[in-house]
Amino acid sequence: MTEPPAAPRGGLAKTRIETLVDGVLAIAMTLLVLDLRPPGPEVTSLGPYLAEQSSTFLAYFLSFANLGVFWVGHHTQFEAVRRTDRIFHWITILFLMFVALIPYSTATLARHLTDPGAVALYGGIFFGAGLGLLFMWLYATTGRRLVDPDLPAARVRQASHRIIIGMAIIGIGMAAAFVDTRISLALFALVPLYFMFPGSIDRFWSTGE
Amino acid sequence: MTEPPAAPRGGLAKTRIETLVDGVLAIAMTLLVLDLRPPGPEVTSLGPYLAEQSSTFLAYFLSFANLGVFWVGHHTQFEAVRRTDRIFHWITILFLMFVALIPYSTATLARHLTDPGAVALYGGIFFGAGLGLLFMWLYATTGRRLVDPDLPAARVRQASHRIIIGMAIIGIGMAAAFVDTRISLALFALVPLYFMFPGSIDRFWSTGE
Amino acid sequence: MTEPPAAPRGGLAKTRIETLVDGVLAIAMTLLVLDLRPPGPEVTSLGPYLAEQSSTFLAYFLSFANLGVFWVGHHTQFEAVRRTDRIFHWITILFLMFVALIPYSTATLARHLTDPGAVALYGGIFFGAGLGLLFMWLYATTGRRLVDPDLPAARVRQASHRIIIGMAIIGIGMAAAFVDTRISLALFALVPLYFMFPGSIDRFWSTGE
Amino acid sequence: MTEPPAAPRGGLAKTRIETLVDGVLAIAMTLLVLDLRPPGPEVTSLGPYLAEQSSTFLAYFLSFANLGVFWVGHHTQFEAVRRTDRIFHWITILFLMFVALIPYSTATLARHLTDPGAVALYGGIFFGAGLGLLFMWLYATTGRRLVDPDLPAARVRQASHRIIIGMAIIGIGMAAAFVDTRISLALFALVPLYFMFPGSIDRFWSTGE
Repeated sequence: MTEPPAAPRGGLAKTRIETLVDGVLAIAMTLLVLDLRPPGPEVTSLGPYLAEQSSTFLAYFLSFANLGVFWVGHHTQFEAVRRTDRIFHWITILFLMFVALIPYSTATLARHLTDPGAVALYGGIFFGAGLGLLFMWLYATTGRRLVDPDLPAARVRQASHRIIIGMAIIGIGMAAAFVDTRISLALFALVPLYFMFPGSIDRFWSTGE
Repeated sequence: MTEPPAAPRGGLAKTRIETLVDGVLAIAMTLLVLDLRPPGPEVTSLGPYLAEQSSTFLAYFLSFANLGVFWVGHHTQFEAVRRTDRIFHWITILFLMFVALIPYSTATLARHLTDPGAVALYGGIFFGAGLGLLFMWLYATTGRRLVDPDLPAARVRQASHRIIIGMAIIGIGMAAAFVDTRISLALFALVPLYFMFPGSIDRFWSTGE
Repeated sequence: MTEPPAAPRGGLAKTRIETLVDGVLAIAMTLLVLDLRPPGPEVTSLGPYLAEQSSTFLAYFLSFANLGVFWVGHHTQFEAVRRTDRIFHWITILFLMFVALIPYSTATLARHLTDPGAVALYGGIFFGAGLGLLFMWLYATTGRRLVDPDLPAARVRQASHRIIIGMAIIGIGMAAAFVDTRISLALFALVPLYFMFPGSIDRFWSTGE
Repeated sequence: MTEPPAAPRGGLAKTRIETLVDGVLAIAMTLLVLDLRPPGPEVTSLGPYLAEQSSTFLAYFLSFANLGVFWVGHHTQFEAVRRTDRIFHWITILFLMFVALIPYSTATLARHLTDPGAVALYGGIFFGAGLGLLFMWLYATTGRRLVDPDLPAARVRQASHRIIIGMAIIGIGMAAAFVDTRISLALFALVPLYFMFPGSIDRFWSTGE
């Protein structure tokens, strides 16, 4: 797929959105580490200290991987986006409002791994971010508003389906928190695994068309 | 509108300003979350804890949305900017000095929602940032200094008017703090609502004209 | 001045350095705010609280403005840089090592405005960053190593002189700390004022020559 | 070497990865400073205070320099990368998961310079990040998957060797921690020194070949 100019006739350039989204995602990823408090000088035995932090480490990797899902998803979505407008900017800001909350929901989860409310809140923030990503895609592709007129309908549909599948897994995980929070955590961990493997959607750019 | 080269004859490239501004805005947006302290392990009931944090959440969304206003405003302004110079760089730095203070004024607001001083300070920081954005635009467009010579006068005027309207709402909100701080908060929330909806200015890039 | 391609024959592209430098500068600028602790809910009177923070506010604006000097300086320097190499990368990293320390030296200064050691340390970090910027320029321009072969000698000389003048002001400020720290602060504040006004060097890009 | 278009036929653009990686590296570098706690107003004598922080300063410079190694390494690797795909994105995210942990392992090291466990953990995080960089390179170059078909085999081999040498030094340093942690620190400091000097690999871009 050859890249058309960044700011085609009839729309704002998309590069600024990419910079902002990558910035917020990179900062959210890196702020996750602030919840891992380093052992003070009074800690004489590191092993038990690290063991105590295991749920914080678990939450770190889980959130990092899920932020990775959003970054890859946004990236592949933006391969198709050609221009932007005011409404699209604001859906992006809504999306980022949820993304920037993830260090908070992650720290809450780490301290309350078995509390259904904390687990549902954690899932809810990701669900909200997923909704943002879905709105962006639907807004951009409806009537081919911000994408190429010849973007294949199959690609539009597949991308929507993938976001909805991810959100469904998170939604089921949120509900499962009230049964057993371990089911929720397993489902939340399933999301990056699902998106990590190339699917049929990848042929749209891996084959060059 | 086709994009001219980034660094036209007679001026410094504008991309570095975009990177810096997007960076500071992204960091300011994401640092807002640091004021939302996650519940410690001693918190056994999340519901009341979250309810207690409601003013911090309110301040989070209010500031995030208003930072969004500045990002969209800067973005659309920079669609017209073609080159930069030393004075313009320094107006940008002045603008960012106010933007970077927003996590501070937001945290102050969250703890003092009914204190006229805190509310006026909160509005004042946004007012200062708005002034920075206005100075940038006036400097860039006076004598078409940093923009295309054929930039329509209507667009220059409309963009100025929009910034001034936003600043007027904030200014009235600052004054209203000394009557009832709830009026101020409602006015501060009105600003992103006002800028969220496409106006007549959007035709300058949505039609490609 | 028309922009040559980002990665000319015979060197690494320069855009990655710009992204890293802008990123570290943007983060250092925004982290300065973390030293401004918001008033807790127990503070009933904001006025005296803000007055007590005046030295922190002073340090904030002083450091922000001086970080602005480095950003503008790096930006204008990079208008001339055409390619990079390994040594140049490492001088950049040395430069950033000092830049990233500025939130620390700023917080130290804010708490010890009248301590000659704190003031000299504060100046010393900026002096180190200035040295980094000077090394970058000398390395890039010696034998026109990383710049255009026809870069005017006057521009090379003027840019070096400007950095050396800035460093001299900071150096005198560091020494003056042991006489009266107010002289140092006045000199540190003079640096951004000196660099804010367009000088003869600006004609190299303001005329497009 | 002339730069091919950012998004060639048959793959996703690489610029988004550069933005994310540079963002996370810049933030990790700048967050290191948060572990350097500024002296409070109660500290009357700065000299002894700074002397007490010497291990934190040492850890700061050691980690900054090693993050510099990863930035330069990623940069030079990406000069060869022409396109990306889903698997490559996820190896990048794995790499960044380790990079973002470095402020944590650095703060742990600073407080436990003589604890073999803390030193081995510190090395282990860098080892993991090195593994990420190696996987990226092997994945991109195997069958010339994401690089130019005519990328010289010597360059592919040399780049792999350099990463493996760096990881070997870190691995020996990790093992040495159980003998004397000073040997480990010396070895960890050797890594940036090794990568700072141009080697035979630099001819691939310094000559433009």
